[in-house]
Amino acid sequence: MAREHEKALIVLSGGQDSTTCLYWAIDRFGKDSVSTLTFDYGQRHRVELECAARVAELAGVGNVCLPINTFEALGGDALTDGNIEVKDEVAENGLPNTFVPGRNLIFLTFAAAFAYRHGIDNLVTGVAQTDYSGYPDCREETITALQQALRVGMESRIVLHAPLMHLSKKETVELARDLGGLAAMAYTHTCYNGERPPCRHCPACRLRATGFEEAGIEDPLLSL
Amino acid sequence: MAREHEKALIVLSGGQDSTTCLYWAIDRFGKDSVSTLTFDYGQRHRVELECAARVAELAGVGNVCLPINTFEALGGDALTDGNIEVKDEVAENGLPNTFVPGRNLIFLTFAAAFAYRHGIDNLVTGVAQTDYSGYPDCREETITALQQALRVGMESRIVLHAPLMHLSKKETVELARDLGGLAAMAYTHTCYNGERPPCRHCPACRLRATGFEEAGIEDPLLSL
Repeated sequence: MAREHEKALIVLSGGQDSTTCLYWAIDRFGKDSVSTLTFDYGQRHRVELECAARVAELAGVGNVCLPINTFEALGGDALTDGNIEVKDEVAENGLPNTFVPGRNLIFLTFAAAFAYRHGIDNLVTGVAQTDYSGYPDCREETITALQQALRVGMESRIVLHAPLMHLSKKETVELARDLGGLAAMAYTHTCYNGERPPCRHCPACRLRATGFEEAGIEDPLLSL
Repeated sequence: MAREHEKALIVLSGGQDSTTCLYWAIDRFGKDSVSTLTFDYGQRHRVELECAARVAELAGVGNVCLPINTFEALGGDALTDGNIEVKDEVAENGLPNTFVPGRNLIFLTFAAAFAYRHGIDNLVTGVAQTDYSGYPDCREETITALQQALRVGMESRIVLHAPLMHLSKKETVELARDLGGLAAMAYTHTCYNGERPPCRHCPACRLRATGFEEAGIEDPLLSL
Protein backbone atom coordinates (compact mmCIF):
# COMPACT_ATOMS: atom_id res chain seq x y z
CA MET A 1 0.00 0.00 0.00
CA ALA A 2 1.50 3.30 -1.06
CA ARG A 3 1.98 5.84 1.68
CA GLU A 4 1.56 9.45 0.67
CA HIS A 5 4.13 12.16 1.24
CA GLU A 6 6.83 9.79 2.36
CA LYS A 7 10.20 9.75 0.74
CA ALA A 8 12.48 6.75 0.37
CA LEU A 9 16.19 6.33 -0.27
CA ILE A 10 17.49 3.12 -1.81
CA VAL A 11 21.07 2.01 -1.26
CA LEU A 12 21.78 1.03 -4.87
CA SER A 13 24.88 -1.06 -5.51
CA GLY A 14 24.15 -1.69 -9.16
CA GLY A 15 23.43 -5.33 -8.41
CA GLN A 16 20.35 -7.49 -8.85
CA ASP A 17 19.02 -7.23 -5.30
CA SER A 18 19.24 -3.49 -4.78
CA THR A 19 17.79 -2.92 -8.26
CA THR A 20 14.82 -5.10 -7.32
CA CYS A 21 14.50 -3.00 -4.15
CA LEU A 22 14.41 0.15 -6.24
CA TYR A 23 11.38 -1.14 -8.13
CA TRP A 24 9.83 -2.27 -4.84
CA ALA A 25 10.24 1.28 -3.49
CA ILE A 26 8.86 2.88 -6.65
CA ASP A 27 5.81 0.64 -6.33
CA ARG A 28 5.36 1.45 -2.67
CA PHE A 29 6.27 5.14 -2.43
CA GLY A 30 5.87 6.40 -6.00
CA LYS A 31 8.66 7.30 -8.40
CA ASP A 32 8.70 10.98 -7.46
CA SER A 33 9.39 10.11 -3.83
CA VAL A 34 12.29 7.80 -4.51
CA SER A 35 16.00 8.49 -4.88
CA THR A 36 19.09 6.30 -4.80
CA LEU A 37 22.48 6.43 -3.13
CA THR A 38 25.56 4.54 -4.30
CA PHE A 39 28.89 4.19 -2.52
CA ASP A 40 32.23 4.38 -4.22
CA TYR A 41 34.16 2.48 -1.56
CA GLY A 42 37.05 1.25 -3.66
CA GLN A 43 35.26 -1.84 -4.97
CA ARG A 44 37.47 -3.67 -7.41
CA HIS A 45 34.77 -3.60 -10.08
CA ARG A 46 34.25 0.04 -10.95
CA VAL A 47 31.59 -1.04 -13.45
CA GLU A 48 29.18 -1.37 -10.51
CA LEU A 49 29.04 2.43 -10.16
CA GLU A 50 28.18 2.81 -13.81
CA CYS A 51 25.56 0.08 -13.51
CA ALA A 52 23.94 1.84 -10.56
CA ALA A 53 23.79 5.12 -12.47
CA ARG A 54 22.28 3.42 -15.54
CA VAL A 55 19.69 1.52 -13.50
CA ALA A 56 18.61 4.75 -11.78
CA GLU A 57 18.44 6.54 -15.10
CA LEU A 58 16.33 3.78 -16.63
CA ALA A 59 13.99 3.88 -13.63
CA GLY A 60 13.81 7.67 -13.84
CA VAL A 61 15.07 8.43 -10.33
CA GLY A 62 18.05 10.35 -9.01
CA ASN A 63 21.36 8.76 -8.10
CA VAL A 64 23.99 10.28 -5.82
CA CYS A 65 27.39 8.65 -5.40
CA LEU A 66 29.26 9.13 -2.12
CA PRO A 67 32.92 8.20 -1.69
CA ILE A 68 34.21 6.11 1.21
CA ASN A 69 37.99 5.76 1.25
CA THR A 70 38.15 4.07 4.65
CA PHE A 71 37.70 0.41 3.69
CA GLU A 72 40.79 0.49 1.51
CA ALA A 73 42.73 1.94 4.43
CA LEU A 74 41.39 -0.83 6.68
CA GLY A 75 42.81 -3.20 4.10
CA GLY A 76 42.92 -6.88 3.47
CA ASP A 77 39.57 -7.55 1.80
CA ALA A 78 39.16 -9.30 -1.49
CA LEU A 79 36.39 -7.01 -2.71
CA THR A 80 38.46 -3.86 -2.27
CA ASP A 81 42.03 -5.07 -2.61
CA GLY A 82 43.04 -5.83 -6.17
CA ASN A 83 45.97 -7.91 -4.92
CA ILE A 84 43.82 -10.48 -3.14
CA GLU A 85 42.29 -13.25 -5.21
CA VAL A 86 38.60 -14.02 -4.75
CA LYS A 87 38.19 -17.55 -3.44
CA ASP A 88 35.22 -19.84 -3.15
CA GLU A 89 36.49 -21.13 0.15
CA VAL A 90 35.70 -19.47 3.42
CA ALA A 91 38.43 -18.27 5.73
CA GLU A 92 39.25 -19.76 9.13
CA ASN A 93 36.62 -17.62 10.83
CA GLY A 94 33.89 -19.15 8.66
CA LEU A 95 33.34 -15.98 6.66
CA PRO A 96 34.02 -15.66 2.94
CA ASN A 97 37.18 -13.68 2.27
CA THR A 98 35.08 -11.03 0.55
CA PHE A 99 33.78 -9.99 3.95
CA VAL A 100 34.45 -6.41 5.02
CA PRO A 101 33.51 -6.28 8.70
CA GLY A 102 30.54 -4.00 9.20
CA ARG A 103 30.32 -2.92 5.60
CA ASN A 104 26.55 -2.79 5.53
CA LEU A 105 26.47 -1.07 8.92
CA ILE A 106 28.64 1.68 7.47
CA PHE A 107 26.64 1.95 4.23
CA LEU A 108 23.35 2.19 6.08
CA THR A 109 24.66 4.66 8.65
CA PHE A 110 25.99 7.01 5.96
CA ALA A 111 22.74 6.52 4.04
CA ALA A 112 20.78 7.40 7.18
CA ALA A 113 22.87 10.57 7.59
CA PHE A 114 22.16 11.48 3.96
CA ALA A 115 18.47 10.70 4.47
CA TYR A 116 18.40 12.82 7.63
CA ARG A 117 19.74 15.83 5.74
CA HIS A 118 17.15 15.39 3.01
CA GLY A 119 14.11 14.73 5.18
CA ILE A 120 13.81 11.12 4.07
CA ASP A 121 12.43 8.66 6.62
CA ASN A 122 12.61 5.40 4.65
CA LEU A 123 15.81 3.60 3.84
CA VAL A 124 15.70 0.52 1.62
CA THR A 125 18.43 -2.10 1.46
CA GLY A 126 18.71 -5.26 -0.61
CA VAL A 127 20.20 -7.46 2.09
CA ALA A 128 18.71 -10.94 2.47
CA GLN A 129 19.37 -13.67 4.95
CA THR A 130 17.78 -16.45 2.93
CA ASP A 131 20.76 -16.71 0.63
CA TYR A 132 22.87 -15.61 3.58
CA SER A 133 26.42 -16.33 2.51
CA GLY A 134 28.15 -15.78 5.80
CA TYR A 135 27.61 -12.04 6.15
CA PRO A 136 26.27 -11.32 9.63
CA ASP A 137 25.46 -7.74 8.64
CA CYS A 138 22.78 -9.03 6.23
CA ARG A 139 20.61 -10.64 8.88
CA GLU A 140 17.30 -9.31 10.12
CA GLU A 141 18.58 -9.16 13.69
CA THR A 142 21.34 -6.79 12.54
CA ILE A 143 18.96 -4.56 10.60
CA THR A 144 16.65 -4.34 13.60
CA ALA A 145 19.50 -3.47 15.97
CA LEU A 146 20.96 -0.93 13.57
CA GLN A 147 17.60 0.77 13.06
CA GLN A 148 17.41 1.28 16.81
CA ALA A 149 20.95 2.69 16.95
CA LEU A 150 20.22 5.06 14.05
CA ARG A 151 16.95 6.25 15.58
CA VAL A 152 18.40 7.13 18.95
CA GLY A 153 21.78 8.23 17.58
CA MET A 154 20.29 10.68 15.09
CA GLU A 155 16.98 11.38 16.80
CA SER A 156 15.32 10.32 13.58
CA ARG A 157 12.23 8.36 12.57
CA ILE A 158 14.20 6.32 10.07
CA VAL A 159 12.67 3.03 9.03
CA LEU A 160 14.95 0.40 7.50
CA HIS A 161 13.24 -1.70 4.86
CA ALA A 162 14.77 -4.98 3.70
CA PRO A 163 12.07 -6.30 1.38
CA LEU A 164 14.19 -9.22 0.16
CA MET A 165 15.16 -10.38 3.66
CA HIS A 166 13.17 -13.60 3.54
CA LEU A 167 12.98 -14.17 -0.21
CA SER A 168 14.93 -16.81 -2.10
CA LYS A 169 16.81 -15.76 -5.25
CA LYS A 170 13.95 -17.31 -7.24
CA GLU A 171 11.41 -15.18 -5.41
CA THR A 172 13.54 -12.07 -5.87
CA VAL A 173 13.58 -12.65 -9.63
CA GLU A 174 9.80 -13.12 -9.61
CA LEU A 175 9.37 -9.93 -7.58
CA ALA A 176 11.48 -7.94 -10.05
CA ARG A 177 9.35 -9.30 -12.89
CA ASP A 178 6.08 -8.50 -11.12
CA LEU A 179 7.21 -4.93 -10.41
CA GLY A 180 8.32 -4.24 -13.98
CA GLY A 181 11.99 -4.30 -13.06
CA LEU A 182 13.11 -7.13 -15.30
CA ALA A 183 14.40 -4.91 -18.13
CA ALA A 184 16.67 -3.12 -15.64
CA MET A 185 18.37 -6.43 -14.85
CA ALA A 186 20.27 -6.10 -18.13
CA TYR A 187 22.13 -3.16 -16.56
CA THR A 188 22.95 -4.79 -13.25
CA HIS A 189 26.27 -6.26 -12.27
CA THR A 190 26.76 -9.47 -10.31
CA CYS A 191 29.96 -11.19 -11.49
CA TYR A 192 32.67 -11.34 -8.82
CA ASN A 193 35.25 -11.41 -11.60
CA GLY A 194 33.97 -8.10 -12.96
CA GLU A 195 33.20 -9.47 -16.41
CA ARG A 196 30.50 -8.16 -18.74
CA PRO A 197 29.04 -10.39 -20.15
CA PRO A 198 29.43 -12.27 -16.86
CA CYS A 199 31.88 -15.15 -16.40
CA ARG A 200 29.02 -17.51 -15.40
CA HIS A 201 31.24 -19.61 -13.16
CA CYS A 202 32.02 -17.48 -10.08
CA PRO A 203 29.83 -18.05 -6.99
CA ALA A 204 27.87 -14.83 -7.60
CA CYS A 205 27.12 -15.69 -11.24
CA ARG A 206 26.07 -19.21 -10.27
CA LEU A 207 23.74 -17.97 -7.51
CA ARG A 208 22.16 -15.49 -9.90
CA ALA A 209 21.74 -18.10 -12.63
CA THR A 210 20.06 -20.51 -10.23
CA GLY A 211 17.50 -17.86 -9.24
CA PHE A 212 16.55 -17.11 -12.83
CA GLU A 213 16.45 -20.79 -13.74
CA GLU A 214 14.20 -21.68 -10.82
CA ALA A 215 11.89 -18.80 -11.72
CA GLY A 216 11.82 -19.99 -15.34
CA ILE A 217 12.85 -16.55 -16.54
CA GLU A 218 15.65 -15.68 -18.93
CA ASP A 219 18.21 -13.31 -17.44
CA PRO A 220 18.21 -10.17 -19.66
CA LEU A 221 21.89 -9.72 -18.79
CA LEU A 222 22.79 -12.90 -20.67
CA SER A 223 21.22 -11.78 -23.94
CA LEU A 224 23.17 -8.54 -24.15
CA MET B 1 40.41 -3.98 38.01
CA ALA B 2 42.78 -4.88 35.22
CA ARG B 3 41.71 -7.77 33.04
CA GLU B 4 44.49 -9.95 31.68
CA HIS B 5 44.98 -10.73 28.03
CA GLU B 6 42.37 -8.27 26.84
CA LYS B 7 43.18 -5.61 24.31
CA ALA B 8 41.58 -2.21 24.04
CA LEU B 9 41.30 0.35 21.26
CA ILE B 10 40.70 4.00 22.10
CA VAL B 11 39.11 6.34 19.58
CA LEU B 12 41.50 9.23 20.10
CA SER B 13 40.44 12.59 18.70
CA GLY B 14 43.28 14.55 20.23
CA GLY B 15 40.86 16.25 22.61
CA GLN B 16 40.61 16.32 26.38
CA ASP B 17 37.99 13.61 26.78
CA SER B 18 39.46 10.91 24.56
CA THR B 19 42.90 11.58 26.06
CA THR B 20 41.44 11.01 29.51
CA CYS B 21 39.94 7.79 28.16
CA LEU B 22 43.36 6.69 26.95
CA TYR B 23 44.74 6.97 30.47
CA TRP B 24 41.64 5.21 31.83
CA ALA B 25 42.30 2.33 29.40
CA ILE B 26 46.00 2.16 30.26
CA ASP B 27 45.04 1.91 33.92
CA ARG B 28 42.48 -0.79 33.27
CA PHE B 29 44.05 -2.91 30.53
CA GLY B 30 47.75 -2.12 30.81
CA LYS B 31 49.81 -0.02 28.42
CA ASP B 32 50.94 -2.97 26.31
CA SER B 33 47.32 -3.91 25.59
CA VAL B 34 46.23 -0.48 24.46
CA SER B 35 46.32 1.19 21.06
CA THR B 36 44.62 4.24 19.61
CA LEU B 37 42.76 5.07 16.42
CA THR B 38 42.27 8.55 15.01
CA PHE B 39 40.06 9.60 12.11
CA ASP B 40 41.07 12.09 9.48
CA TYR B 41 37.54 13.01 8.42
CA GLY B 42 38.18 16.44 7.00
CA GLN B 43 37.96 18.27 10.31
CA ARG B 44 38.69 21.93 9.83
CA HIS B 45 41.38 21.85 12.50
CA ARG B 46 44.11 19.59 11.19
CA VAL B 47 46.04 20.24 14.38
CA GLU B 48 43.79 17.66 16.08
CA LEU B 49 45.52 14.85 14.18
CA GLU B 50 48.91 16.04 15.29
CA CYS B 51 47.65 16.36 18.87
CA ALA B 52 46.35 12.78 18.83
CA ALA B 53 49.70 11.48 17.57
CA ARG B 54 51.61 13.44 20.21
CA VAL B 55 49.31 12.30 23.02
CA ALA B 56 49.73 8.66 21.97
CA GLU B 57 53.49 9.10 21.74
CA LEU B 58 53.65 10.66 25.19
CA ALA B 59 51.57 7.80 26.60
CA GLY B 60 53.76 5.26 24.82
CA VAL B 61 50.99 3.59 22.79
CA GLY B 62 50.43 3.15 19.07
CA ASN B 63 48.31 5.48 16.96
CA VAL B 64 46.78 4.65 13.61
CA CYS B 65 45.03 7.31 11.53
CA LEU B 66 42.25 6.25 9.17
CA PRO B 67 40.83 8.57 6.51
CA ILE B 68 37.11 9.15 6.03
CA ASN B 69 36.30 11.34 3.04
CA THR B 70 32.54 10.80 3.21
CA PHE B 71 31.50 13.52 5.65
CA GLU B 72 32.88 16.24 3.38
CA ALA B 73 30.89 14.75 0.52
CA LEU B 74 27.77 14.73 2.70
CA GLY B 75 28.43 18.44 3.16
CA GLY B 76 26.99 21.28 5.11
CA ASP B 77 28.58 20.83 8.52
CA ALA B 78 30.47 23.53 10.35
CA LEU B 79 33.14 21.16 11.65
CA THR B 80 34.09 19.90 8.21
CA ASP B 81 33.16 22.74 5.89
CA GLY B 82 35.61 25.64 6.03
CA ASN B 83 33.00 27.91 4.46
CA ILE B 84 30.51 27.58 7.30
CA GLU B 85 31.04 29.73 10.37
CA VAL B 86 30.82 28.08 13.79
CA LYS B 87 27.92 29.57 15.73
CA ASP B 88 26.95 29.38 19.38
CA GLU B 89 23.31 29.19 18.42
CA VAL B 90 21.56 25.96 17.69
CA ALA B 91 19.82 25.35 14.39
CA GLU B 92 16.07 25.00 13.90
CA ASN B 93 16.22 21.30 14.75
CA GLY B 94 17.65 22.11 18.18
CA LEU B 95 21.08 20.73 17.33
CA PRO B 96 24.25 22.80 17.20
CA ASN B 97 25.35 23.45 13.63
CA THR B 98 28.53 21.50 14.33
CA PHE B 99 26.42 18.35 14.30
CA VAL B 100 27.34 15.72 11.72
CA PRO B 101 24.46 13.25 11.82
CA GLY B 102 25.70 9.92 13.03
CA ARG B 103 29.33 10.93 13.24
CA ASN B 104 30.07 8.90 16.35
CA LEU B 105 28.12 5.95 14.96
CA ILE B 106 30.44 5.97 11.96
CA PHE B 107 33.59 6.43 14.03
CA LEU B 108 32.69 3.59 16.37
CA THR B 109 31.63 1.27 13.54
CA PHE B 110 34.89 1.77 11.65
CA ALA B 111 36.77 1.40 14.95
CA ALA B 112 34.90 -1.85 15.62
CA ALA B 113 35.89 -3.12 12.15
CA PHE B 114 39.51 -2.21 12.88
CA ALA B 115 39.26 -3.89 16.30
CA TYR B 116 37.73 -6.99 14.72
CA ARG B 117 40.68 -7.32 12.35
CA HIS B 118 43.15 -6.96 15.20
CA GLY B 119 41.47 -9.25 17.71
CA ILE B 120 40.53 -6.37 20.03
CA ASP B 121 37.34 -6.77 22.04
CA ASN B 122 37.25 -3.46 23.91
CA LEU B 123 36.49 -0.15 22.29
CA VAL B 124 36.75 3.03 24.36
CA THR B 125 35.08 6.30 23.46
CA GLY B 126 35.12 9.67 25.23
CA VAL B 127 31.47 10.52 24.67
CA ALA B 128 29.57 11.90 27.66
CA GLN B 129 25.96 12.78 28.11
CA THR B 130 26.44 14.88 31.24
CA ASP B 131 27.74 17.84 29.30
CA TYR B 132 25.57 16.66 26.43
CA SER B 133 25.53 19.56 24.02
CA GLY B 134 22.78 18.38 21.73
CA TYR B 135 24.52 15.39 20.19
CA PRO B 136 22.20 12.39 20.34
CA ASP B 137 25.03 10.07 19.32
CA CYS B 138 26.81 10.79 22.63
CA ARG B 139 24.07 9.36 24.84
CA GLU B 140 24.25 6.09 26.72
CA GLU B 141 21.13 4.82 24.97
CA THR B 142 22.89 5.25 21.63
CA ILE B 143 26.06 3.50 22.78
CA THR B 144 24.02 0.58 24.10
CA ALA B 145 22.04 0.25 20.87
CA LEU B 146 25.15 0.55 18.72
CA GLN B 147 27.00 -2.09 20.73
CA GLN B 148 24.16 -4.49 20.01
CA ALA B 149 24.22 -3.66 16.28
CA LEU B 150 28.00 -4.13 16.14
CA ARG B 151 27.88 -7.43 18.00
CA VAL B 152 25.27 -9.02 15.78
CA GLY B 153 26.45 -7.29 12.61
CA MET B 154 30.05 -8.44 13.00
CA GLU B 155 29.52 -11.53 15.12
CA SER B 156 31.91 -10.00 17.59
CA ARG B 157 32.21 -9.78 21.36
CA ILE B 158 32.94 -6.07 21.20
CA VAL B 159 32.33 -4.09 24.38
CA LEU B 160 31.87 -0.34 24.07
CA HIS B 161 33.26 1.55 27.05
CA ALA B 162 32.29 5.16 27.65
CA PRO B 163 33.95 5.85 30.99
CA LEU B 164 33.12 9.58 30.92
CA MET B 165 29.44 9.04 30.14
CA HIS B 166 28.14 10.25 33.50
CA LEU B 167 31.02 12.48 34.58
CA SER B 168 30.92 16.26 34.65
CA LYS B 169 33.80 18.16 33.06
CA LYS B 170 35.11 18.76 36.59
CA GLU B 171 35.10 15.04 37.30
CA THR B 172 36.78 14.29 33.98
CA VAL B 173 39.61 16.66 34.87
CA GLU B 174 39.96 15.00 38.27
CA LEU B 175 39.98 11.56 36.63
CA ALA B 176 42.76 12.61 34.25
CA ARG B 177 44.77 13.89 37.22
CA ASP B 178 44.22 10.71 39.25
CA LEU B 179 45.31 8.53 36.32
CA GLY B 180 48.48 10.50 35.64
CA GLY B 181 47.12 11.98 32.43
CA LEU B 182 47.33 15.65 33.32
CA ALA B 183 50.64 16.28 31.55
CA ALA B 184 49.15 14.98 28.31
CA MET B 185 46.48 17.68 28.48
CA ALA B 186 49.11 20.16 27.26
CA TYR B 187 49.03 18.34 23.92
CA THR B 188 45.28 18.12 23.54
CA HIS B 189 43.16 20.35 21.36
CA THR B 190 39.78 21.75 22.28
CA CYS B 191 39.34 25.20 20.70
CA TYR B 192 36.59 25.35 18.06
CA ASN B 193 38.49 28.18 16.42
CA GLY B 194 41.56 25.99 15.98
CA GLU B 195 43.85 28.33 17.90
CA ARG B 196 46.93 27.24 19.87
CA PRO B 197 47.17 28.68 22.49
CA PRO B 198 43.38 28.44 22.60
CA CYS B 199 41.09 31.43 21.97
CA ARG B 200 39.47 31.03 25.44
CA HIS B 201 36.13 32.44 24.28
CA CYS B 202 34.57 29.80 22.01
CA PRO B 203 32.01 27.43 23.62
CA ALA B 204 34.53 24.56 23.70
CA CYS B 205 37.24 26.62 25.37
CA ARG B 206 34.75 27.96 27.94
CA LEU B 207 33.46 24.47 28.77
CA ARG B 208 37.00 23.19 29.20
CA ALA B 209 38.01 26.16 31.37
CA THR B 210 34.99 25.68 33.62
CA GLY B 211 35.95 22.04 34.21
CA PHE B 212 39.51 22.89 35.23
CA GLU B 213 38.34 25.81 37.39
CA GLU B 214 35.79 23.72 39.23
CA ALA B 215 38.42 21.02 39.83
CA GLY B 216 40.82 23.65 41.11
CA ILE B 217 43.49 22.52 38.65
CA GLU B 218 45.48 24.64 36.27
CA ASP B 219 45.09 23.59 32.64
CA PRO B 220 48.58 22.62 31.36
CA LEU B 221 47.50 23.78 27.92
CA LEU B 222 47.29 27.40 29.11
CA SER B 223 50.85 27.52 30.41
CA LEU B 224 52.42 26.48 27.11
